[in-house]
Amino acid sequence: MSEKGAGNFFEDFRLGQVIKHATPRTITTGDVALYTGLYGSRFAVQSSDVFAKKIGYPRAPVDDLLVFHVVFGKTVQDISLNAIANLGYASCRFLTPVYPSDTLNATSEVIGLRENSNRQSGVVYVRSKGFNQKGKTVLDYVRWVMVRKRDESATTVEAKVPKLPMQVKAEELGGAVPKLKLKHYDNTLAGSARRFADYSVGDKIDHRDGVTVEEAEHQIATRLYQNSARVHFNQFTEGKGRFGRRLIYGGHVISLARALSFNGLENAFHVAAINGGRHVAPLFAGLTVFAWSEVLDRREIPKRKDIGALRLRTIATKDHPCGDFAFKQGDDYDPAVILDLDYWTLVPR
Amino acid sequence: MSEKGAGNFFEDFRLGQVIKHATPRTITTGDVALYTGLYGSRFAVQSSDVFAKKIGYPRAPVDDLLVFHVVFGKTVQDISLNAIANLGYASCRFLTPVYPSDTLNATSEVIGLRENSNRQSGVVYVRSKGFNQKGKTVLDYVRWVMVRKRDESATTVEAKVPKLPMQVKAEELGGAVPKLKLKHYDNTLAGSARRFADYSVGDKIDHRDGVTVEEAEHQIATRLYQNSARVHFNQFTEGKGRFGRRLIYGGHVISLARALSFNGLENAFHVAAINGGRHVAPLFAGLTVFAWSEVLDRREIPKRKDIGALRLRTIATKDHPCGDFAFKQGDDYDPAVILDLDYWTLVPR
Amino acid sequence: MSEKGAGNFFEDFRLGQVIKHATPRTITTGDVALYTGLYGSRFAVQSSDVFAKKIGYPRAPVDDLLVFHVVFGKTVQDISLNAIANLGYASCRFLTPVYPSDTLNATSEVIGLRENSNRQSGVVYVRSKGFNQKGKTVLDYVRWVMVRKRDESATTVEAKVPKLPMQVKAEELGGAVPKLKLKHYDNTLAGSARRFADYSVGDKIDHRDGVTVEEAEHQIATRLYQNSARVHFNQFTEGKGRFGRRLIYGGHVISLARALSFNGLENAFHVAAINGGRHVAPLFAGLTVFAWSEVLDRREIPKRKDIGALRLRTIATKDHPCGDFAFKQGDDYDPAVILDLDYWTLVPR
Repeated sequence: MSEKGAGNFFEDFRLGQVIKHATPRTITTGDVALYTGLYGSRFAVQSSDVFAKKIGYPRAPVDDLLVFHVVFGKTVQDISLNAIANLGYASCRFLTPVYPSDTLNATSEVIGLRENSNRQSGVVYVRSKGFNQKGKTVLDYVRWVMVRKRDESATTVEAKVPKLPMQVKAEELGGAVPKLKLKHYDNTLAGSARRFADYSVGDKIDHRDGVTVEEAEHQIATRLYQNSARVHFNQFTEGKGRFGRRLIYGGHVISLARALSFNGLENAFHVAAINGGRHVAPLFAGLTVFAWSEVLDRREIPKRKDIGALRLRTIATKDHPCGDFAFKQGDDYDPAVILDLDYWTLVPR
Repeated sequence: MSEKGAGNFFEDFRLGQVIKHATPRTITTGDVALYTGLYGSRFAVQSSDVFAKKIGYPRAPVDDLLVFHVVFGKTVQDISLNAIANLGYASCRFLTPVYPSDTLNATSEVIGLRENSNRQSGVVYVRSKGFNQKGKTVLDYVRWVMVRKRDESATTVEAKVPKLPMQVKAEELGGAVPKLKLKHYDNTLAGSARRFADYSVGDKIDHRDGVTVEEAEHQIATRLYQNSARVHFNQFTEGKGRFGRRLIYGGHVISLARALSFNGLENAFHVAAINGGRHVAPLFAGLTVFAWSEVLDRREIPKRKDIGALRLRTIATKDHPCGDFAFKQGDDYDPAVILDLDYWTLVPR
Repeated sequence: MSEKGAGNFFEDFRLGQVIKHATPRTITTGDVALYTGLYGSRFAVQSSDVFAKKIGYPRAPVDDLLVFHVVFGKTVQDISLNAIANLGYASCRFLTPVYPSDTLNATSEVIGLRENSNRQSGVVYVRSKGFNQKGKTVLDYVRWVMVRKRDESATTVEAKVPKLPMQVKAEELGGAVPKLKLKHYDNTLAGSARRFADYSVGDKIDHRDGVTVEEAEHQIATRLYQNSARVHFNQFTEGKGRFGRRLIYGGHVISLARALSFNGLENAFHVAAINGGRHVAPLFAGLTVFAWSEVLDRREIPKRKDIGALRLRTIATKDHPCGDFAFKQGDDYDPAVILDLDYWTLVPR
């Protein structure tokens, strides 16, 4: 009867097409609690209404990556249900804080299309946006995915590959953080005295801890985001596939790495932007994730005396503690690396 | 010291006996979030306060099956702790919407008893009801279970087997849905343009996706419902039993199938009644659940121009994708089938 | 760059030192729901706002052990990150009820230090306190842990071992329970008619049920408490260690035993104090936990006609049903025993 549930194929996308995604979602303190149970993040601003209020928020904001995952989850059914690979992210900006009881919606605009030379698939570039119930954009990002064609012989439009910035500019950061009352920012409660001034470009931080991932955990997480990508849930089918295993949602790895990064980045409480992210290798249940970070840049933000921006590269590895700061071997990634994430965090000054 | 925790045996039940069950429960947005994490349901009405309000609810109602499981869970300690098998459901009606912060209680009335010829057990028929804090009935259903006798020689009353309707009548449906403001029902946000008029009796829908169940998931779910049935939690004892495995709560399968059914039934947002349900075969962790549905009937509801009723059969299978609509082989169920559920959903017109 | 994340070693502690711990936490109904999903506790007071209000609470209080775990979790990073063993608890008192939306902080005072004769480690005694957003102490307890030295040659202060009471006195109990309106306490909803008068010293209760623990469950629980102790999460490292397995947080065992104890202790709704606790043996995923309790003492509380205090020993075992009340074999614990917990509960009179 229905093609519904089959998702879009490469030839279904049109340049300039705007897709409004299904399932609006009211974020609650229940989502926040489950997110804490899944990752164990310890940033004080997101954990305590009292701490958040003292420094100028109306209450504790929702973790930025929970917002990202919920918005991303909505796009899956329309954009990437027939994806072969999630190729990259760029220009991801967190623009407005999200609080429990806010309701999120999402849209995506097709900004680029390029068929692969084998004519079996193509790359789709979309700019996705998340909105709150007032229509304010809370999140805005570009991602590109390789999507199967339904019909190899289908003709497609002329290729267009969008120019994407290598990074979000420091001037664009901070929209999701109110002006902070710094005198009420309590270093001890936050877990460290290190503020913006205490980090230098080139600093490398081993986040020390490791966390082993269970199937139940990544499945509960990915469902919490209402992300319906099949590869994460279906052992019957994936067992016969490329890896023989359910593939863990890449965003789960990002959240694991972010939670681990608290050790050494205690005051980098807000992810303001993601410049780019690469899922270097897949992660499967039973493996243990470690992480380290390097400070790539350190910028003041115009008109903000309260916060500064640290550009970080966070590397996540599997079954490989990060005391050696594993990254590349020649041109290739170290085989232990699973995530290479380039992003801006904000740190109180 | 105590018989408490031992539950009732067949000879403890009396016709007409009304049992008030323990542990009243306030449902919260926390329960709703965890339910989402466990099943990933994507129906817009239950996911978004904004969507729900626009069409006439005061806020997003709690998923019908979460209500069912919480009420059912309360009955276990008194009715089915010594059950050999949960034989069936009938005449289950959702009568009043439940919202976060409502508190649920439950009672059961014994409406039938029949000893088995081997005198070792008997069938107990109960009508169970769930109430909110105002005393309004939110849910009303009959189930029958085969319960062990404590003492084979115990005499029991004359058998009475209640007449149960094969189905809830369409006229009885809809009490838990306010009059909808249809012009504000957004098909795109809901995930599909298919409304009541677009379904026909005989339509078969493959829900496509499959979901592998983990022990941690069904245990967390079943505990969330405060369902204390031993077979779901205790590998030490079950490992020596009939299956050698923990048995997954049948309601977990119903919720998995319901969440899968979103693909193709996006606007069938409310389960209004369950006509009957049969757990054809047990489910164990590690297996992958698939589902398909057939439209059995399609009815207008008197005085409701806003919604219509679709009677569905949803079949859940294990390790068997449902493109072939597996159901029966002759008189017997296909060996892949684990659930045969006959129920009414409501769909906007 | 940083020592942060490395935690304190034995020689870093000073007698009288007061440590304010990081990450304040607002407790929500989301935390409560996840706690229910993890343990399935069925005490009516904590489950129902309506039940709690009727007897004199403003709303359902947060489970005492969830409060304990959240406070305990905060202390880990500063006190026990380099612990070899958690040796004991004493004098733990629950002083003020905690409600959803309360924010908890914690401090610890070093009250004892004693280097081990091998000079590689020492025992640290701390009095930890949890506070709510009004600064009221909600919880106060002593624990002692064996902590590694960073440097074997480091000199340490003279040993001081604090005198610890064998038990909290009955007169000190009840601060976290408002005066109950007993006529509104509904035995049926609570699950049992047994009140304070119905228990006698020496009573032994087999809690009957068993629950198998999964890795995902204890990891989600321990992260919910923001407890960052490494041994619970990192299979890569633990796989090479003493047990070859991730070690389950001892508090997880306490909460499992407490939830099991509902069978037979239905009205012992509040843990008022923990006199002492011993994690006799480690627990690993895949094992099934059972429990039994003995009434050690039974005391009226001065000026409280509404409640009485039962001092209980609850024993948890692994893969060993407790019909035989397994405890000791000669001077040693039965090899099945994993927890020996001595605590006070309050029961309506």
